[in-house]
Amino acid sequence: MALKSFIEVHPDSHFPIQNLPYGVFKPQPGASPRPGVAIGDYVLDLSQIASAGLFNGPLLNNSDCFHQPNLNKFVSLGRPAWKEARATLQKLLSATEPTLRDNATLREKSLVHMSSVQLVLPVQIGDYTDFFSSLHHTKNCGLIFRGPQNPVLENWYHLPVAYHGRASSVVISGTDIVRPRGQAHPAPGSPPYFGPTRKLDFELEMATIVGPGNELGKPVDINNAEDHIFGVVLMNDWSARDIQAWEYVPLGPFLGKNFGTTISPWIVTLEALEPFACEAPKQDPPPLPYLTEKVSKNYDVVLEVHIKPVEHENSSVVTRSNLKHLYWTLTQQLAHHTINGCNLRPGDLLGTGTISGPEQESRGCLLELTWNGQNALSLNGVDRKFLEDGDEVTFTGYCKGDGYTIGFGKCSGKIIPSTP
Amino acid sequence: MALKSFIEVHPDSHFPIQNLPYGVFKPQPGASPRPGVAIGDYVLDLSQIASAGLFNGPLLNNSDCFHQPNLNKFVSLGRPAWKEARATLQKLLSATEPTLRDNATLREKSLVHMSSVQLVLPVQIGDYTDFFSSLHHTKNCGLIFRGPQNPVLENWYHLPVAYHGRASSVVISGTDIVRPRGQAHPAPGSPPYFGPTRKLDFELEMATIVGPGNELGKPVDINNAEDHIFGVVLMNDWSARDIQAWEYVPLGPFLGKNFGTTISPWIVTLEALEPFACEAPKQDPPPLPYLTEKVSKNYDVVLEVHIKPVEHENSSVVTRSNLKHLYWTLTQQLAHHTINGCNLRPGDLLGTGTISGPEQESRGCLLELTWNGQNALSLNGVDRKFLEDGDEVTFTGYCKGDGYTIGFGKCSGKIIPSTP
Ligand SMILES: [Ca+2]
Ligand SMILES: [Ca+2]
Ligand SMILES: [Mg+2]
Ligand SMILES: [Mg+2]
Ligand code: NI
Repeated sequence: MALKSFIEVHPDSHFPIQNLPYGVFKPQPGASPRPGVAIGDYVLDLSQIASAGLFNGPLLNNSDCFHQPNLNKFVSLGRPAWKEARATLQKLLSATEPTLRDNATLREKSLVHMSSVQLVLPVQIGDYTDFFSSLHHTKNCGLIFRGPQNPVLENWYHLPVAYHGRASSVVISGTDIVRPRGQAHPAPGSPPYFGPTRKLDFELEMATIVGPGNELGKPVDINNAEDHIFGVVLMNDWSARDIQAWEYVPLGPFLGKNFGTTISPWIVTLEALEPFACEAPKQDPPPLPYLTEKVSKNYDVVLEVHIKPVEHENSSVVTRSNLKHLYWTLTQQLAHHTINGCNLRPGDLLGTGTISGPEQESRGCLLELTWNGQNALSLNGVDRKFLEDGDEVTFTGYCKGDGYTIGFGKCSGKIIPSTP
Repeated sequence: MALKSFIEVHPDSHFPIQNLPYGVFKPQPGASPRPGVAIGDYVLDLSQIASAGLFNGPLLNNSDCFHQPNLNKFVSLGRPAWKEARATLQKLLSATEPTLRDNATLREKSLVHMSSVQLVLPVQIGDYTDFFSSLHHTKNCGLIFRGPQNPVLENWYHLPVAYHGRASSVVISGTDIVRPRGQAHPAPGSPPYFGPTRKLDFELEMATIVGPGNELGKPVDINNAEDHIFGVVLMNDWSARDIQAWEYVPLGPFLGKNFGTTISPWIVTLEALEPFACEAPKQDPPPLPYLTEKVSKNYDVVLEVHIKPVEHENSSVVTRSNLKHLYWTLTQQLAHHTINGCNLRPGDLLGTGTISGPEQESRGCLLELTWNGQNALSLNGVDRKFLEDGDEVTFTGYCKGDGYTIGFGKCSGKIIPSTP
């Protein structure tokens, strides 16, 4: 019999008692931010639960981790503390447990309807790294930019290629994205021009939130990498393809990416995802020993991209993909990141790279979907090659369990015109 | 007549009363970090000066910016506050001012000999960006890797090329650098191998410390960019050339760079550098309007690289260069960084890129000096193509004034063997 909460949760809700994703919220505008978990249509205020002395396990009993304005301290504590918190919360919220269920005063203080809260970034992100781990995405980009000779570069099969992104411009779902201006250079030989990007794109990604970090100079072993992963969010790595194409040689993407990156507010833990673990694709050539893991896991997370064009009230699904298509696993990404001694810190964000699947409908960005603007997409009769001002892009993600859904909520953003 | 402090300062000292660079220090091991300025062989403890009520100008009178564990709050206040602090400190330390000079108790509390303090990172770095702004360095790298056909890529003359670096692994001068391990691929066609880097290099750079930031979506105008620059430090962007060469296509350097970046502890302010401003090189083609500045300034800062090889007690100078060789100015870098709406935050670090001059002796890294390991350098009879375990690299930088020196102190690090 499935675990049930005393709060009624619709089977399609993203937030049953099996999920309990962590976020940070303000119960009212102007209130101080505090950690919470999502349960059905409510947010449970963990600072209130902590103040009531209900985190009474040995690891969290005297901790102030839920009296912080972000989750960095909690995620730094590691898996034993996460498991303790999860056990405490699943018990507290279960239909058969009276402690919270029958305490009207505490319920009043600690359960806030989701419609009235303001969600903020769940962690302070020290550094943000973006990988490039979907073979389908990599192949499509290579075909578009370099042709059929050599679409996937030789290094790609040997290491999870990545670059550093910009931490300052990571924003929470719902934040408007200002169309970036910059240089582009469509006609080789003639000088570049300057203006608002004409090739504004989304990138369908997920991202790891790092738990405990590692010391500078001390790599994380591949078979311990999972213990450094707190959980996963949806991520839209907005990209200006014309700016990117002109600037990126030889040092990689910069202004074509760093004007904004949107993440979903709820961090879904690896504990909640564990029932949806699946085998990762076989890697050929086999990776070097430092990337070879005893268990090579992906997760079966259905991903969708919805675009609501400025002309319409309704949105269209343009992409259906899945996290399981990733070639390099989350743990390989993390181990690779530290193999040179690079230190990760709690709350760091590691993007997977655009998650494209094998089919045309599972391509994770407009660059691929429209083949760099050659073929427009039709959104209920409205044509789109790239994003227009006023367009709104929403990602969703979920795992379908037996009678329940482990969901990621939404990751969305609307394009607003360049200033001035 | 030149301004003089009541503390005796040798004419060759880097820290006369004309300089007053800002750092953060612990007066004794275990003490809490606090802001200070360097004066001769001493550090003036600004938390003590603030507690004594001596920052009595209108902007700093009631500020707690000198009671912080880093300079982020102070640098966020902007140029009027920086000028007020400088005026207060120059008066307080001058030979003719009795307030501190004749107060033995306050001197005892606030002046700490430099030999007894521990210097720490002066700012919390939210994001670190590294530019590629020396034409000589760019040309040499292009000649080495792509040959004489096309050493400088077309975009380079139109924009200050840059990439995001890793903030977590920026360390203070004196921190040992662990030789990174990683993948390299010397023989095309055969698989990569894994091991400690065989091509460990330094990169002679300086870096801007950002003062006030800008809001996401709101670019900084090129002619206001200077007001966002608090000051400058020396920076060694340690690089593993073999790791970098294999990983960097198509998304730029990652593990070849992010194992460590060393900065000097003292931030020299633009006010102190102003007497050494000089015209920047003429730019041809002329930059786009958003990069065109009314006054285009470099600074005449003499830079030296010293290597003490593990076999020797003495170090050799391997490079003499100068900040004035930079093609893209610090203000152009900053304006470009924000033109797409990217937000900078107080304390952000913007590296110039390797500063090579036109002569062979002014090349800013071993890659250029040894032409990628083809010609060994002789250090007092010891050969070096790249850095060996135990080698110590030290940068110095200074401006020669009339009877005084505005110096940057040292930026140094020693290579220690890979673990395990
Ligand atoms: Ca991406
Ligand atoms: Ca560099
Ligand atoms: Mg982005
Ligand atoms: Mg570095
Ligand atoms: Ni960063």
